[in-house]
Amino acid sequence: MPRKIRMGMVGGGRDAFIGGVHRIAAAIDQQIELVCGAFSSNPEKSRLSGEDFFLDPSRVYGNYKEMIEKERQLPEDVRMDFISIVTPNHVHYGPAKMALEHGFHVVCDKPLSFDLEEARDLVETVNRTGQIFALTHNYTGYPMVKQARAMIKNDALGKIKKVVVEYPQGWLSTLLESSDQKQAAWRTDPKKSGIAGAMGDIGTHAENLAEYITGLKIKELCADISTLVDGRLLDDDGNILLRFDNGARGVLFASQISVGEENSLAIRIYGEKAGLEWHQMQPNTLIFKHQEKPAEIYRTGVGVLYPETVAAARVPAGHPEGYLEAFANIYRNFAKCVQARIDGVAVDPIYEDYPTVEDGLRGMEFIYKVIESGKSDQKWIKL
Amino acid sequence: MPRKIRMGMVGGGRDAFIGGVHRIAAAIDQQIELVCGAFSSNPEKSRLSGEDFFLDPSRVYGNYKEMIEKERQLPEDVRMDFISIVTPNHVHYGPAKMALEHGFHVVCDKPLSFDLEEARDLVETVNRTGQIFALTHNYTGYPMVKQARAMIKNDALGKIKKVVVEYPQGWLSTLLESSDQKQAAWRTDPKKSGIAGAMGDIGTHAENLAEYITGLKIKELCADISTLVDGRLLDDDGNILLRFDNGARGVLFASQISVGEENSLAIRIYGEKAGLEWHQMQPNTLIFKHQEKPAEIYRTGVGVLYPETVAAARVPAGHPEGYLEAFANIYRNFAKCVQARIDGVAVDPIYEDYPTVEDGLRGMEFIYKVIESGKSDQKWIKL
Amino acid sequence: MPRKIRMGMVGGGRDAFIGGVHRIAAAIDQQIELVCGAFSSNPEKSRLSGEDFFLDPSRVYGNYKEMIEKERQLPEDVRMDFISIVTPNHVHYGPAKMALEHGFHVVCDKPLSFDLEEARDLVETVNRTGQIFALTHNYTGYPMVKQARAMIKNDALGKIKKVVVEYPQGWLSTLLESSDQKQAAWRTDPKKSGIAGAMGDIGTHAENLAEYITGLKIKELCADISTLVDGRLLDDDGNILLRFDNGARGVLFASQISVGEENSLAIRIYGEKAGLEWHQMQPNTLIFKHQEKPAEIYRTGVGVLYPETVAAARVPAGHPEGYLEAFANIYRNFAKCVQARIDGVAVDPIYEDYPTVEDGLRGMEFIYKVIESGKSDQKWIKL
Amino acid sequence: MPRKIRMGMVGGGRDAFIGGVHRIAAAIDQQIELVCGAFSSNPEKSRLSGEDFFLDPSRVYGNYKEMIEKERQLPEDVRMDFISIVTPNHVHYGPAKMALEHGFHVVCDKPLSFDLEEARDLVETVNRTGQIFALTHNYTGYPMVKQARAMIKNDALGKIKKVVVEYPQGWLSTLLESSDQKQAAWRTDPKKSGIAGAMGDIGTHAENLAEYITGLKIKELCADISTLVDGRLLDDDGNILLRFDNGARGVLFASQISVGEENSLAIRIYGEKAGLEWHQMQPNTLIFKHQEKPAEIYRTGVGVLYPETVAAARVPAGHPEGYLEAFANIYRNFAKCVQARIDGVAVDPIYEDYPTVEDGLRGMEFIYKVIESGKSDQKWIKL
Repeated sequence: MPRKIRMGMVGGGRDAFIGGVHRIAAAIDQQIELVCGAFSSNPEKSRLSGEDFFLDPSRVYGNYKEMIEKERQLPEDVRMDFISIVTPNHVHYGPAKMALEHGFHVVCDKPLSFDLEEARDLVETVNRTGQIFALTHNYTGYPMVKQARAMIKNDALGKIKKVVVEYPQGWLSTLLESSDQKQAAWRTDPKKSGIAGAMGDIGTHAENLAEYITGLKIKELCADISTLVDGRLLDDDGNILLRFDNGARGVLFASQISVGEENSLAIRIYGEKAGLEWHQMQPNTLIFKHQEKPAEIYRTGVGVLYPETVAAARVPAGHPEGYLEAFANIYRNFAKCVQARIDGVAVDPIYEDYPTVEDGLRGMEFIYKVIESGKSDQKWIKL
Repeated sequence: MPRKIRMGMVGGGRDAFIGGVHRIAAAIDQQIELVCGAFSSNPEKSRLSGEDFFLDPSRVYGNYKEMIEKERQLPEDVRMDFISIVTPNHVHYGPAKMALEHGFHVVCDKPLSFDLEEARDLVETVNRTGQIFALTHNYTGYPMVKQARAMIKNDALGKIKKVVVEYPQGWLSTLLESSDQKQAAWRTDPKKSGIAGAMGDIGTHAENLAEYITGLKIKELCADISTLVDGRLLDDDGNILLRFDNGARGVLFASQISVGEENSLAIRIYGEKAGLEWHQMQPNTLIFKHQEKPAEIYRTGVGVLYPETVAAARVPAGHPEGYLEAFANIYRNFAKCVQARIDGVAVDPIYEDYPTVEDGLRGMEFIYKVIESGKSDQKWIKL
Repeated sequence: MPRKIRMGMVGGGRDAFIGGVHRIAAAIDQQIELVCGAFSSNPEKSRLSGEDFFLDPSRVYGNYKEMIEKERQLPEDVRMDFISIVTPNHVHYGPAKMALEHGFHVVCDKPLSFDLEEARDLVETVNRTGQIFALTHNYTGYPMVKQARAMIKNDALGKIKKVVVEYPQGWLSTLLESSDQKQAAWRTDPKKSGIAGAMGDIGTHAENLAEYITGLKIKELCADISTLVDGRLLDDDGNILLRFDNGARGVLFASQISVGEENSLAIRIYGEKAGLEWHQMQPNTLIFKHQEKPAEIYRTGVGVLYPETVAAARVPAGHPEGYLEAFANIYRNFAKCVQARIDGVAVDPIYEDYPTVEDGLRGMEFIYKVIESGKSDQKWIKL
Repeated sequence: MPRKIRMGMVGGGRDAFIGGVHRIAAAIDQQIELVCGAFSSNPEKSRLSGEDFFLDPSRVYGNYKEMIEKERQLPEDVRMDFISIVTPNHVHYGPAKMALEHGFHVVCDKPLSFDLEEARDLVETVNRTGQIFALTHNYTGYPMVKQARAMIKNDALGKIKKVVVEYPQGWLSTLLESSDQKQAAWRTDPKKSGIAGAMGDIGTHAENLAEYITGLKIKELCADISTLVDGRLLDDDGNILLRFDNGARGVLFASQISVGEENSLAIRIYGEKAGLEWHQMQPNTLIFKHQEKPAEIYRTGVGVLYPETVAAARVPAGHPEGYLEAFANIYRNFAKCVQARIDGVAVDPIYEDYPTVEDGLRGMEFIYKVIESGKSDQKWIKL
């Protein structure tokens, strides 16, 4: 009999940012139930978080190892089906690996891991265990991102020639990590974030978005990577020339010191026949550009859209869906795949659309090459 | 011990539009659990809907009367706390009245009722029973709507002089009700919708938004109400001159035949000192206008905002929240009030902000006066 | 042999606003030469203005009567061909009438005259003398306004059902006329402006734009006309319900107290099949809206546009043309008609597109009916 | 006695694009009179063009040499004061050099010359002759560009850290030069355009805009320069990493194959304290961005702006000025400087603001370094 699938959470206690987002994203479509968690390395905080989420105290654990071990011993109709990992980068690999090895599926925040070695090992582990693994490159969850991808797949643009993808933010335009701001602290700390700051946090979203929509792969890149706030330990700005595998040219820039920018991920794609433009902050609009006739304003819910676009939206045109719904689409698709696995049935292919562990490895390789290029006098670095 | 509050739903079975919205809105903040429902007058459809929502079949009822009676008999720690009414207008009064009389709280879709008499009786019933009643005038749930209201309350505009509120849609620009479209069918049917079409469906949202933000009351109005699609039984377009109780002038127009408009609710307010502009389709932006200096772009999450604005948002600036989150704010505030009632504690006043049964009565009076004015040769009709 | 046509100006001395606009508009297309003027009732100011414009001092006159008489006596190959009247409303009729009677063509700022009687007499005079008369309802000079008109004429929208035209400004949101501001002073002075303030200054532009684009005539109106700034002598805000001769409904509002609004003339038109939206402050964009497919962004210079649109633009797409160019289109078309008259040849019909004295009379009738309606308890007033 | 200054034009006959723009730009402010020209290498076309412009046939010349020689011999109160050069790049140097040597001032279209050697020689010639020379980098003529420059000069942004300047167009996304399109033909012809296509035509505008507004100099660059349309002889797309002399990072991209883009020059500048954003296609708006408070919408004509901004606008707020007026500002400032020279008086410093021959040389150096970088494996090239 169909049932909600059961989630255990690693991280995401009181005051965390991304943990709350994951819980909302998992809740929206009512396919997933939060049943347990190891919300914090601080046991008291973990306990209080469990209360906030109305959990049975016996299923609020002190750490992920305890959680995985204890849940493993619960009856099948009680224990969690998957874990959701919402910790800083250096605590992705441990719970992911252990969960996979113990028969749990995994949702993991991006970037995939602390370093490239972990990423490669996780790919191997997923492939070996056969568990379902979703990485929350959430921006690919937007309906109009899916529409763009489908249009390009169906040749609406002709051969792609140019891509401009950008992700400016301003929140780290001062040395915020010197204050008490937790988000700033770990994201700029090489011991928690890994070799990259802005490039890992947001550059990799831009890379993922560009490759997801275009279906192309970045083949070579040339990066100028900087730390523009004195005292910061990781990069906070990067400007990158791209060459794609089909010969298309591109520009990718990502920044956390662009004062006054909120979360301005955007992409413009130009093909032989037409162009596309999408802005994350106005996510339900996709501009389809032509040279010899008026541009068209594609909108979520208006006209004939691809089935994957339609499946990613919940309300009629003009009722704006946003970041949380896009994020929820990753969870919904993941949940549908897990449900099908549990029920032993084939899943509707429309749901087999979420970022995978391979996308995560790709992102880690991108980060490594970008940082390498930033330090190199060599113009082009192969990816 | 704190717990999720328990919801029973009336209406909203498979294929319904607004029922799904209510379920998502109730789910987002994880304060509410759907435990039972009478989802359809068609028992088979109700049963299948219950399966979709993973409900215990014993709590999927054939109609709201059965649901209220049976739930009443369940143990206190099992039975629903409130019902959510998501049926067409002519089936609001029955379940609302019965639920209130049987000790359940109520969330009800707008407009409040089929006619004015029902509305007045519901006000009396709520006052008498002391139950909590929320009406889903969801557009007041947006953070920037709350910001606008707070700015005006704190005199950022000076005395209000002019209000322009508009709600153009295009979805009924053809005789859609002659096809199989269920939404169009009941909304244009006087037996289900009441005396008004567009004016009840969306005009009343515009009225509610204007009065909510400005804190003013419409005192007089002069309406031109039309049915611009041949064969339609109710109004589909209305243009209304407004005079407010403080002497401010206004224009309200709402239309369902404005071809190509999605759901373009918008408001502009001009005071002695400054102006405000907000568009539902770009809900996280509020333009604060000045005469002698640059306009300012207020954004959800940017800078110092009022506490009620902050409380209505979940994610940082630039991560767009939309219609479902605004809707969820009604449910979240309602749930917090019900929880406090259950726990016998005072509720944080920030949560005592949701449309009430009195707002619903106000809306019904507005509808009646607008329709009266539309038929009258008298220029001004008092509200 | 073709030559530039020669302009004499009435009003528009140093510090005047609209006189400078007219001179630029006349200069842009290099078809018109300013040869003389009576720029001010202050002779010294008139003289200095003549110096500013590099005029022969002998052709800088003390008043329009002197100018018309003296120019009349100059050789045909020297004397002015037409006068341009850029004075306040109460000094339109005198110079226009005298110029027409003395064989000069006329360009006149709007509204046509101080009162309705003058307007009727000017229509009669133009018809009797056969001189060419253009009224500078400049907003109809924009390429995308012409495109909208042509699209409607060619049935791109089907039967028009709804029109929303608006003209909010904020510059008179305080009692600016109590300071030394000349523009505010005469525009709010019933002795110079006539019976209306905002309705004459900008309401009439809105009326003209709506009728020009749609090809419809306003048949009835119901107005709420107010003076919202204490101490002001004329109206500064008006909200008007419209009914057009084909049954279409409409709303027109114009305001000079809408704080923070610059010059936000805009129009939305909805037909059976499609809609159009245009904003004066982004004049090179025209949105063509559909119900079942994406809206299209028509842009000056992009794709296939109507010949009258093309003729009204001077530079390629993306090189914004603005207010002065739209204004210049009135002068250019007028000049081409005068040149053809001088040369005794037929004029290209594309140039026979400028507001006429009849449009001016229509505007005056609109003003009178709006003011009448504003004072009346009768709901609908016929126009 | 003050008089209009007299212009002779080189190039710009019938059907030319930029010649007409220059004539309008020179006409708008009524400080300049077109008195003669060598409009085309085709004498008949030159003659007909002279008729179009109502010129004395004796002053319509067969070529620029004849024009300069003959005009030199006319009486001082008749002969032209300056020449305006609106020919393709390979015909800039000849007339400019000769005019300067013969005592005429020069306005020249950009880029300055066919090659770097010519550019250096023109700088030397201007310095030696002391004639006034203006280059029409017209985009710096916009009021809001001047505002941005003044704000940065007055430290509104703090130290500049990041610049993104872009100039996408789509008009050469096909091999348009294989058709009969004259603009495409010469701009893609190395014999007429020089070593660069898009980089010379528009890349140099982007460079000029960035350096003009920020007051910084590009110190190093790394370019990916491509020809993305098969068969084209010059570059049509370029993506460039920038490092400025103060350490700021930057991205510059310019493209003529970005399908559907009109003329989308735009710039974003981020400093320590604030950011600025400006788009040529909405030129009267400048967004001033802050991290901890709402962004402000600076608009031409609204609030307190710098004197150079005010001087660059002609009409009140909300009356859009565009490309032609920005272009006219170059001519107006140039004319005021020439008039002051003629009158032997000091010029108001506000008019000493137009692109100079040194700016032209800078642009040529930029073009050369960009093309060099595009061919190089070396990452950074010094400018």
